[in-house]
Amino acid sequence: MLEFNWKNVDEAVIGKEHGINVKKEFESYKGKVADIVSDIYSNKSTAGKWLAWMNLGYNEDLIKEINEYAQSVKGKFDNLLVLGIGGSALGGIAVTEALLKPYWNVLNNDQRNNMPRIFFVDNIDPDQIQGLLDVLDLKKTLVNVITKSGSTAETMSAFMIIKEMLEKEPGADYKNNIVATTDIHKGILRQIADEEDLKSFIVPDDVGGRFSVFSAVGLLPFALVGIDIAEILKGVRDMDKALSNTDINNNIAAQNALIHYLMDENGKNLSVMMPYSSRLRFVSDWYVQLWAESLGKDKDLDGNDVNIGPTPIKALGATDQHSQIQLYNEGPNDKLINFIRVKEFDNTLEIPKVFQNTGISYLGGKTINDLNNAEAESTKVALNDYKRPNVTITLPKVNEYYLGQILYMLEVQTAIAGALYNIDTFNQPGVEQAKNYTYALMDREGYEESAKTLKQKINA
Amino acid sequence: MLEFNWKNVDEAVIGKEHGINVKKEFESYKGKVADIVSDIYSNKSTAGKWLAWMNLGYNEDLIKEINEYAQSVKGKFDNLLVLGIGGSALGGIAVTEALLKPYWNVLNNDQRNNMPRIFFVDNIDPDQIQGLLDVLDLKKTLVNVITKSGSTAETMSAFMIIKEMLEKEPGADYKNNIVATTDIHKGILRQIADEEDLKSFIVPDDVGGRFSVFSAVGLLPFALVGIDIAEILKGVRDMDKALSNTDINNNIAAQNALIHYLMDENGKNLSVMMPYSSRLRFVSDWYVQLWAESLGKDKDLDGNDVNIGPTPIKALGATDQHSQIQLYNEGPNDKLINFIRVKEFDNTLEIPKVFQNTGISYLGGKTINDLNNAEAESTKVALNDYKRPNVTITLPKVNEYYLGQILYMLEVQTAIAGALYNIDTFNQPGVEQAKNYTYALMDREGYEESAKTLKQKINA
Repeated sequence: MLEFNWKNVDEAVIGKEHGINVKKEFESYKGKVADIVSDIYSNKSTAGKWLAWMNLGYNEDLIKEINEYAQSVKGKFDNLLVLGIGGSALGGIAVTEALLKPYWNVLNNDQRNNMPRIFFVDNIDPDQIQGLLDVLDLKKTLVNVITKSGSTAETMSAFMIIKEMLEKEPGADYKNNIVATTDIHKGILRQIADEEDLKSFIVPDDVGGRFSVFSAVGLLPFALVGIDIAEILKGVRDMDKALSNTDINNNIAAQNALIHYLMDENGKNLSVMMPYSSRLRFVSDWYVQLWAESLGKDKDLDGNDVNIGPTPIKALGATDQHSQIQLYNEGPNDKLINFIRVKEFDNTLEIPKVFQNTGISYLGGKTINDLNNAEAESTKVALNDYKRPNVTITLPKVNEYYLGQILYMLEVQTAIAGALYNIDTFNQPGVEQAKNYTYALMDREGYEESAKTLKQKINA
Repeated sequence: MLEFNWKNVDEAVIGKEHGINVKKEFESYKGKVADIVSDIYSNKSTAGKWLAWMNLGYNEDLIKEINEYAQSVKGKFDNLLVLGIGGSALGGIAVTEALLKPYWNVLNNDQRNNMPRIFFVDNIDPDQIQGLLDVLDLKKTLVNVITKSGSTAETMSAFMIIKEMLEKEPGADYKNNIVATTDIHKGILRQIADEEDLKSFIVPDDVGGRFSVFSAVGLLPFALVGIDIAEILKGVRDMDKALSNTDINNNIAAQNALIHYLMDENGKNLSVMMPYSSRLRFVSDWYVQLWAESLGKDKDLDGNDVNIGPTPIKALGATDQHSQIQLYNEGPNDKLINFIRVKEFDNTLEIPKVFQNTGISYLGGKTINDLNNAEAESTKVALNDYKRPNVTITLPKVNEYYLGQILYMLEVQTAIAGALYNIDTFNQPGVEQAKNYTYALMDREGYEESAKTLKQKINA
């Protein structure tokens, strides 16, 4: 199991002004946290509670269906192109960057075990999309278009371009090059998939985009590049069981949720996610969406105006020691740093004994692993010296099993934090306005009046 | 010239509680800002002021020297491998990602105009470094190792590994595969470069790492992959001239520095950098270091404890509309969003009229460019509706000239902001402690006592 260490938020380490008495706080929130955990777990399968993501680890049929499809297309495509944005891309990027060999798209076929290269289009940048179209042989590309509603303009506009190009490719039966991941019954992409008779997988109901990584949204692309999805879900299930423990002393998601909540109360409402592993760097991007979109809310569940939400921040160790750490140490004491550590890397890389007559001779004979560890530990102790709170999540290894564990842990942590804040963790009303404005600017039918108002505002 | 628009921080747009009367503030800070700008510009060439980066745009000799070297190695290498961390990597990554064709390392030789692929090692992750070594044919790789002091453990340990591997490659005259960028006289890498007779370029004195992008630190790798460095410096010079204007009404760097300073005073001390261009996404990473390390300080110039510094945050439009915008709109009103817009993309990408019987028919006939613009404008207006301050920097195009302009503008903005905060913009004392701890843990001579204390702290 992955480990969680909170000792560097304790007042024993960083003092009373910035730290808390962790044991005491756990004790005083014991009842409340137990209620929250038991409430969340008992509502897993209740429609409308948006907690169906908690069941995703148990879907053996889906694993089978996805692996069968992956097997059926194996060797047929050089590239997998994923069209999705936000929750339809961030989990995919985080997991594939962590689990595929580094520099995957630069490797040759043998090095990739004949698995396809993988590309994500998660933005609407004409230069980037055109650049990608210049790179890809579409005939040899499997396109996975992901949107539950099918109304996501970014994803669908890219899909429209690529669908037409595929159709024009001489000799290609373009339908075999497309697989849709969308709602089972309704929505625009479902309509298209049915009309065009496209292969499709399901985005289940009551699973929000940012909680969808363990549905077909994530699992399908993972399986298509050779990642062991059964092993990912094994990690999810083991973590799910561990986190069903209502005793905060034995529930690491509840512990980190409560620590974040109390730190926020103490003026530390920035949550930095800082893995000391390049392979885990996009886990931070995924976490940023999860944390920001779930907890950044203007109203609480009783309708009070609260405008709350800790701001998540991406960082990468050791790289950001040369970028953000100066601010973390000396700037405002307003951050809680989440270290992610890897106990055992896949490789051990020795530093040879060269340049022995210079001031860096001490590095010779050590390993890059030693140095990574020394820098992480040193940064932690320095943060302690500056009385900056920090916690550490430790993965035994970067593999399917532990990646499933950490992502699921962070999801449950988010749900518990939302309950502590007394807000709706699962909606995102604050992005609707801009969507409507975009429809208006793009001349979508029914938005003519908004268009007028909007154009006035823009030109004001 | 690039443009700067501050109207969405004005109280006329976002109200008196969160906005400011910009014209009035400019008027009342007019004298102070004029003093700051004139002070900075008059100290450009004063030793010890760390303002020598302001002269980098004018070094015609360096352009010549770099271009000659680039010409001499042209066609000889398949890969350029840059070893550097923090300021020795972030500018390089930002500029090459912006100016090279997208997916550069996946393109074939023809598509790259026979220029090398480019890789940066800016972390000490054994899996990533090993992965890269598996990818690169070192005989066909030019290694540019960048560190002014040569004591940067991350960079030098990677260099030690690669140097030994190069030496062992049969038949390779390994010295031709290495070019060092370091101090002109002193330091460990200078010693090595002299002893091994390596080709080298200079990191000039009085230029901090985070302000070094327009020295050989950045220009050499840029030239080696075919970027027009003369054109970059032309942009720098034109911006330098524009920003020497001491009248805040005509100085966009001073305007944005003052706006950030006043917003911080008003409780908005998070500075979000959000380009609506995938190619510019690493400009945000570069900005994060520049802003965080320069302005996050515990003492002001009079020795008072201040613990100040706005926290910079990376974002990417339109992608982060599906991630961070919910928080920006509804969460605490503690952020100032910096949009970066591109007026004209290199490509115009039409969305075909397919799926005309569905709810996304409105997209057909429009362009990805239209959609990018609509989303940016809509997000801006929604932020205004929520009374969230935002400014916009607009680049006419993403090219050498305007990239030089924006990076230099942000550098000058940082220097002016530091003066407004009355802090030392150019030091970074807060990272020294962790460095010393790392030396201790790595058994560097002279750190034996710290090692003992440290080990106690770690095991406490």
